[in-house]
Amino acid sequence: MSTFGTLFRVTTYGESHCASVGAIIDGCPPGLPLQPQDVQVQLSRRRPGQSNLTTPRDEKDLVQLQSGIEHGITLGTPIGLLVKNEDQRPRDYSETDLYPRPSHADWTYLEKYGIKASSGGGRSSARETIGRVAAGAIAEKYLKLVYGVEIVAFVSSVGKIKLPSYVSPPSQVEADDDEVVEDALSPEFVNLLKTITREQVDAHPTRCPHPETAERMTKRIIRAKESLDSIGGTVTCVIRGVPSGLGEPVFDKLEAKLAHAMLSIPATKAFEVGSGFRGTEVPGSKHNDAFGGISNGEDIYFRIGFKSPATISQAQETAQYDGTAGTLAARGRHDPCVVPRAVPIVEAMASLVIMDHVLIQNARKTAASHLPPITTLPPTMVKPTASA
Amino acid sequence: MSTFGTLFRVTTYGESHCASVGAIIDGCPPGLPLQPQDVQVQLSRRRPGQSNLTTPRDEKDLVQLQSGIEHGITLGTPIGLLVKNEDQRPRDYSETDLYPRPSHADWTYLEKYGIKASSGGGRSSARETIGRVAAGAIAEKYLKLVYGVEIVAFVSSVGKIKLPSYVSPPSQVEADDDEVVEDALSPEFVNLLKTITREQVDAHPTRCPHPETAERMTKRIIRAKESLDSIGGTVTCVIRGVPSGLGEPVFDKLEAKLAHAMLSIPATKAFEVGSGFRGTEVPGSKHNDAFGGISNGEDIYFRIGFKSPATISQAQETAQYDGTAGTLAARGRHDPCVVPRAVPIVEAMASLVIMDHVLIQNARKTAASHLPPITTLPPTMVKPTASA
Amino acid sequence: MSTFGTLFRVTTYGESHCASVGAIIDGCPPGLPLQPQDVQVQLSRRRPGQSNLTTPRDEKDLVQLQSGIEHGITLGTPIGLLVKNEDQRPRDYSETDLYPRPSHADWTYLEKYGIKASSGGGRSSARETIGRVAAGAIAEKYLKLVYGVEIVAFVSSVGKIKLPSYVSPPSQVEADDDEVVEDALSPEFVNLLKTITREQVDAHPTRCPHPETAERMTKRIIRAKESLDSIGGTVTCVIRGVPSGLGEPVFDKLEAKLAHAMLSIPATKAFEVGSGFRGTEVPGSKHNDAFGGISNGEDIYFRIGFKSPATISQAQETAQYDGTAGTLAARGRHDPCVVPRAVPIVEAMASLVIMDHVLIQNARKTAASHLPPITTLPPTMVKPTASA
Amino acid sequence: MSTFGTLFRVTTYGESHCASVGAIIDGCPPGLPLQPQDVQVQLSRRRPGQSNLTTPRDEKDLVQLQSGIEHGITLGTPIGLLVKNEDQRPRDYSETDLYPRPSHADWTYLEKYGIKASSGGGRSSARETIGRVAAGAIAEKYLKLVYGVEIVAFVSSVGKIKLPSYVSPPSQVEADDDEVVEDALSPEFVNLLKTITREQVDAHPTRCPHPETAERMTKRIIRAKESLDSIGGTVTCVIRGVPSGLGEPVFDKLEAKLAHAMLSIPATKAFEVGSGFRGTEVPGSKHNDAFGGISNGEDIYFRIGFKSPATISQAQETAQYDGTAGTLAARGRHDPCVVPRAVPIVEAMASLVIMDHVLIQNARKTAASHLPPITTLPPTMVKPTASA
Repeated sequence: MSTFGTLFRVTTYGESHCASVGAIIDGCPPGLPLQPQDVQVQLSRRRPGQSNLTTPRDEKDLVQLQSGIEHGITLGTPIGLLVKNEDQRPRDYSETDLYPRPSHADWTYLEKYGIKASSGGGRSSARETIGRVAAGAIAEKYLKLVYGVEIVAFVSSVGKIKLPSYVSPPSQVEADDDEVVEDALSPEFVNLLKTITREQVDAHPTRCPHPETAERMTKRIIRAKESLDSIGGTVTCVIRGVPSGLGEPVFDKLEAKLAHAMLSIPATKAFEVGSGFRGTEVPGSKHNDAFGGISNGEDIYFRIGFKSPATISQAQETAQYDGTAGTLAARGRHDPCVVPRAVPIVEAMASLVIMDHVLIQNARKTAASHLPPITTLPPTMVKPTASA
Repeated sequence: MSTFGTLFRVTTYGESHCASVGAIIDGCPPGLPLQPQDVQVQLSRRRPGQSNLTTPRDEKDLVQLQSGIEHGITLGTPIGLLVKNEDQRPRDYSETDLYPRPSHADWTYLEKYGIKASSGGGRSSARETIGRVAAGAIAEKYLKLVYGVEIVAFVSSVGKIKLPSYVSPPSQVEADDDEVVEDALSPEFVNLLKTITREQVDAHPTRCPHPETAERMTKRIIRAKESLDSIGGTVTCVIRGVPSGLGEPVFDKLEAKLAHAMLSIPATKAFEVGSGFRGTEVPGSKHNDAFGGISNGEDIYFRIGFKSPATISQAQETAQYDGTAGTLAARGRHDPCVVPRAVPIVEAMASLVIMDHVLIQNARKTAASHLPPITTLPPTMVKPTASA
Repeated sequence: MSTFGTLFRVTTYGESHCASVGAIIDGCPPGLPLQPQDVQVQLSRRRPGQSNLTTPRDEKDLVQLQSGIEHGITLGTPIGLLVKNEDQRPRDYSETDLYPRPSHADWTYLEKYGIKASSGGGRSSARETIGRVAAGAIAEKYLKLVYGVEIVAFVSSVGKIKLPSYVSPPSQVEADDDEVVEDALSPEFVNLLKTITREQVDAHPTRCPHPETAERMTKRIIRAKESLDSIGGTVTCVIRGVPSGLGEPVFDKLEAKLAHAMLSIPATKAFEVGSGFRGTEVPGSKHNDAFGGISNGEDIYFRIGFKSPATISQAQETAQYDGTAGTLAARGRHDPCVVPRAVPIVEAMASLVIMDHVLIQNARKTAASHLPPITTLPPTMVKPTASA
Repeated sequence: MSTFGTLFRVTTYGESHCASVGAIIDGCPPGLPLQPQDVQVQLSRRRPGQSNLTTPRDEKDLVQLQSGIEHGITLGTPIGLLVKNEDQRPRDYSETDLYPRPSHADWTYLEKYGIKASSGGGRSSARETIGRVAAGAIAEKYLKLVYGVEIVAFVSSVGKIKLPSYVSPPSQVEADDDEVVEDALSPEFVNLLKTITREQVDAHPTRCPHPETAERMTKRIIRAKESLDSIGGTVTCVIRGVPSGLGEPVFDKLEAKLAHAMLSIPATKAFEVGSGFRGTEVPGSKHNDAFGGISNGEDIYFRIGFKSPATISQAQETAQYDGTAGTLAARGRHDPCVVPRAVPIVEAMASLVIMDHVLIQNARKTAASHLPPITTLPPTMVKPTASA
């Protein structure tokens, strides 16, 4: 459905071309200083039209906070917010509407609902993410203020152009030779994860913080654009300062919720946390990944794969809804590459997951803290107190 | 928490060495023929001690159905079930309990709860998955009977030993050359996804359906075992026959729920659906991945990465809970490689996700079917009827 | 929290004097004809200022549908809606804000959140119910169109003035004499439950469909108003045409969800279904109440008690938040009696409960209908088919 | 479904005559001392066969804790528990199974599921409440230890025999005379609510703490029993020591959750909190009921109405499932009056509601406590600090 979270809960509404898109954020702690600008800054980072790498639509995306805040302080009650859909150009699409767009939700929406919005992507539209980004910005404000949590996402690949992260490239052979030196994160990449800031990310339109790679990505995106084609990529995100103890065994492990959150972003197809797929190749003796479903205070980083956008500007052979074959003409205004704009969406979803788990863990930890000290258990079963 | 699903809902309990592990499955449709054997077969596939590749514990894992079934037919009421913990050998662990095991949940459980089970992995133990496998077997019984759904998982890599799946190996260079021929799934692998059966998977102890690769995997696992080490791997799963229309925009897309489900399995670190990370490198013009959050009737396949098991039999330098440095001696009986046993767990979690979405879509589709036909909308907004 | 329902789910936001109040309705079946007027009619019935029996605020309460609907047909996606807060007069309250209003949420909101809205009742304000009424109107549209469900609430008492419903008045003595003839619903009241319409209810400003009693209620309310006092009352609601099989054992029985829904309406203190408290006095031999948690196709009726509004216009002795004693001066514009305006709110909450249960039962029933017929069970265990 | 609660969550399974009934309690704070006896004491109070007022079945109902506890301390992981169904006598019922029992769930279960358990009441059986009582006992252990919460329920009426609670009996006339002195709780009843203990309640088999009334109730129940009939009644429950701030606006007000919880108990038909229906008759000037959805630290009391048990020992005219008319012979062993045994069930459900709200409020309050002090708001918006 359209609700995410247990105690910090966001519910979104809105299609591409309806009156507005918006969200209700329920469960925000009372007493949090919050200005529209806190939300707007991330909405603006999400906004298209910021460079020649993205779609030229210039949406203003100004957030209107409706409730839950007075004098710049949250009340603890639901925060309603909305962004008007100013750029409503359904006609862009209507001429070729007889053909479901390949890889778009058109056909599956009809299968699911028996009806679909007249134009645009309905709920699969990228505009739906506005509500998430707004909600995430509120969660993040709290996490930063209270725990100093820092969440920074950046573009780590566009097509085959990759930010260098490992000492050696992926080994070329299907080696079963134990003597092969295992790959390891390069010191430069480890340092980048520890220090990267949003300012550094935004310094280049690609949102790749490695200037040389960013330039190559730019060329790749421009080539896709010029050839009326599109290209995918990956976003890497690091969360620093996460309090330990977050994540709920067994179904709501922290990675599981992050994976859920990230794969709910349009066009995502892959997720890995820490060393991910590459880590499956390393023996246990050389690789003790400490993260096991519950945060341990260390930085968390993960990577998300975005496929190349499906709506492209080339003509494509396809079939009408009723099966008649034909050619889907080029149309629409679409990003040749979505990953730069996906950066704030990834950050938002990460914020929502962490915030929800903070509240859930608060509930337990506070309840446990009121109980008398445990004195009857073997020492290995009980957390040593600070004085021990 | 320990509950998964909205309408088909499983709740599990149990640690490694308590009286029993079990589950309550709520929301099973009434009228489903169900015998203990339907559940037992998957529990037995999950059971350790099946070959010399896995831990020698010989647990019987006999399921005891408690409720919700009479005369071999489900009543629609909750199905309680449990498996006794027969092999309770906490002493195996106790001697070195002063040292949290690297990469185990010991330390984080103490951070989270302030207390942990005296031995074994608590809820992070692999025994917790018994409840899931049982629940998944029930879901799968329904899906197979009604829709002919087939869910088959298999081992696709162990360490660097990989089942060949692509025509060309991953391209070795960080190429930004558009002329490079894109990788594609090999016809053999496509055929395997379409036809693979559990019998074929179980034909080899590694559960890799490619005999030559399976042999290499076996050697790799034995080497890990002999060197008192461990190794990770990947499991690939295909779901055939999924009805179209499953998956809930926007937060509960089918991939998002699958990712959530898979990353909740112990030791998982990565998930990708379809072409996954590799698909991010392919231009949109060559790659229209049709799957977009809602099932479209085509096969769904995905891959999960499992890290190498953390508890190994080598001595390791570590620190006690109170910070005292020391050496963690070798101990315990553990799999050198978990992926062969993970196969039925992956299948179970996939079944749970599909079943839950079937019920949710039933609710909507049935409700919509009772409404009068829509005659006032543009034809592109409405699903053509069968006769059209 | 601020979300109600499992599959048909409403989430509301808004305080008395913020920018707007609104709701997101998620899970509405696609293909339902829906016009703003369908929602507006119930909002207008909820609106104050409709007679001299209620507060003179003349709010327009015009609903603005934001999403989920095109060309007057629902898309199956979330329906966002809002009503602007036009009458924002926070100053009315501010002068005496040092005193928490007796029986208002002021004090408890401070206890709960540590902060409260500057004026009005925050989320405990009656304006919060606008979102519910709108959502209920949408649910009701579906229920009426598909099942012919009719939901009609009316005022059954104001203070001690009661609509006559039983043949004999409540027996005056604490009789333990079996020979006492038991009370029974009067034929007139039974007939009223079977036939009452909203038009008949709205024929009198009190919304009591018994003219003589309505007149006495009017006098009672006017007396309360003139004496700057307030008075409570009860609302009775009948739901006709409910499909059988609704209600989820064991925690979400239909009565339990109705009770939850009704007691979530501001100022409610009591709920009874069918013969309710009175039915506890009748022996089983004379009283086989057929309704047991699951609907059986018969009409469902229940009664809700509303206490007298707490904010009155008389001066009252109270204490400031910091404990300083003092006198709370008369202030504000408030209904002397809320029950006439509560009628559409009760109807809305009833609609939400029934609609959610319809969808949940759809999910199960459709799933069961796809299974092969059960032939191996004793005949008493299986529902006879239509032909039997 | 069969799960209740958000953070303290109980899921139950089990029919009358299956292998066992049980529950999983998820979300119990870690570190709570818990012995089987803590649970058993309430299960035994729920058990039938305790006096000649109840059914003679002598079930042992010994609880078996399965998980979540070591050395008598909770681990914070799910607590699995079960009670074997020792007294399985399905034959008692089978002879007349062609007739659905009036007012029993037989018919509606068939409508809902298309299938029902071969005998007994399925999930509508009173045995299902075992899981709730066990869960409630665990919640209560925590609440008592940490907050000194005391939850005591007692029988307040059987048929028309009522515990005297008001100064004057319910006024006999449908008076609209303002001069009539309003009813008020008697000082004796107020004192009883403040001091009543479970020991006092259990001193008499009826569980009515007023000896004279208890004797009259006994006679009433015996008369029902001797005439092969049944009789209903009410249970009143008081919760003392509830921390302030519990209850979630707007849908999960504390009364709303209590109403939901109580109406989910089999045979309940009515709920009122505080002065309830009677309070609707009292003007606002004389009645400022302080409780408004959120606890304020004062005692909470409420009353639940239980209808007379439907399965009686008299022959009754009815129809077979297929419509054939006939006479349902007397049969079975059933309580002539369920309210004495309902007492611990009411206490359990009250415990579950309070405990869940404690955890939810913990989450918020702890989150808010970490924020910097609010200095920019008008003083009336912010809770005065302790030093103020």
